[in-house]
Amino acid sequence: MIKYPNGTKYNPPGTKKRESRKSKEDLSISASNRGMNLESDINISNEYYTDHGIALITKRPTPINIVKVDYSRGARITDAYFEKQSTTDYNGVYKGKYLDFEAKNTKNKTSFPLSNIEDHQILHLKRVIEQGGIAFFIIQFQLLNEVYLLDASFVIHFYEKGERKSIPYEVFKSDGILIKQGYNPRLYYLDAVEEKYFKK
Amino acid sequence: MIKYPNGTKYNPPGTKKRESRKSKEDLSISASNRGMNLESDINISNEYYTDHGIALITKRPTPINIVKVDYSRGARITDAYFEKQSTTDYNGVYKGKYLDFEAKNTKNKTSFPLSNIEDHQILHLKRVIEQGGIAFFIIQFQLLNEVYLLDASFVIHFYEKGERKSIPYEVFKSDGILIKQGYNPRLYYLDAVEEKYFKK
Repeated sequence: MIKYPNGTKYNPPGTKKRESRKSKEDLSISASNRGMNLESDINISNEYYTDHGIALITKRPTPINIVKVDYSRGARITDAYFEKQSTTDYNGVYKGKYLDFEAKNTKNKTSFPLSNIEDHQILHLKRVIEQGGIAFFIIQFQLLNEVYLLDASFVIHFYEKGERKSIPYEVFKSDGILIKQGYNPRLYYLDAVEEKYFKK
Repeated sequence: MIKYPNGTKYNPPGTKKRESRKSKEDLSISASNRGMNLESDINISNEYYTDHGIALITKRPTPINIVKVDYSRGARITDAYFEKQSTTDYNGVYKGKYLDFEAKNTKNKTSFPLSNIEDHQILHLKRVIEQGGIAFFIIQFQLLNEVYLLDASFVIHFYEKGERKSIPYEVFKSDGILIKQGYNPRLYYLDAVEEKYFKK
């Protein structure tokens, strides 16, 4: 399933810009659970972490395949289409270590369906682990208002070996780290990273 | 000066795709020095490093600001424009460490002009260093057919404190690492990273 990204532009860390465009999907999410938009929450949290010198984590821009550019209008793109991100959405550095993660939302209450995770994302995260990087998922159970960090190894396991194409909620309870939510940062996900990967 | 990126699509590591579109700038470069296109050489080298499990370094897609999408044509973008990359072009992981770098080409033989480096790129690289990441530039002296790795601290120094808005070639000779060129990888730039940052 190709998930078309919404038409938001990349907000660099440290800027005051916010996302202004919402796809239909995002609108339905915010309608059902106002103020909870996972991607936006992570971006805002990343700005906070950057501004406070805690970490430097950025969202990769959405890759776009450009078909036609009108140079008479100052390099205006007149025909192009979205491509699937061939990696994950986020990477960066925290305490010198490389971090790489994907963020996903589900309305399911009992499991996280793996249907919207792509082969190449799994491959990418396996490579991150091979290179000694920290790889994880941030999964939002939207209707439970809970967000978890789950090490990528669990997702890889269920993706490749699981009989059901989903990860039971219990796995998040037992092996994930519940991410604290607040005003700023919206998601204290680096606290979860610290607990999972840096505490001896 | 806004440097419009060429209309190439993002080539994920491990794929066989190559860049097919060239901007006018690129065409003039390959005309004067056939086969030497820095960005393409780095991308191909990154594929090599990924395929051989040596490192995982990717190019960030060019950020594009989307103005109009035609959903009747399957989410076709009909109006958009290029944005400046607010970070650097490349980042990734090597031996667990976070790497971040920018690649630039010059036709100047005696110095590297800093005019096409942006304030926010300098800020980004300072933040990378603060977070314990490895930050550098890959600079190609096109007419000398030499490519150097130079630690970002030198570029930051000359950018902020230099009287001339350029870095003399001698600095590259004395403090940079000359990157070995070959067929595959085209640029052995991780050898230079190893020598600069990992050798005791």
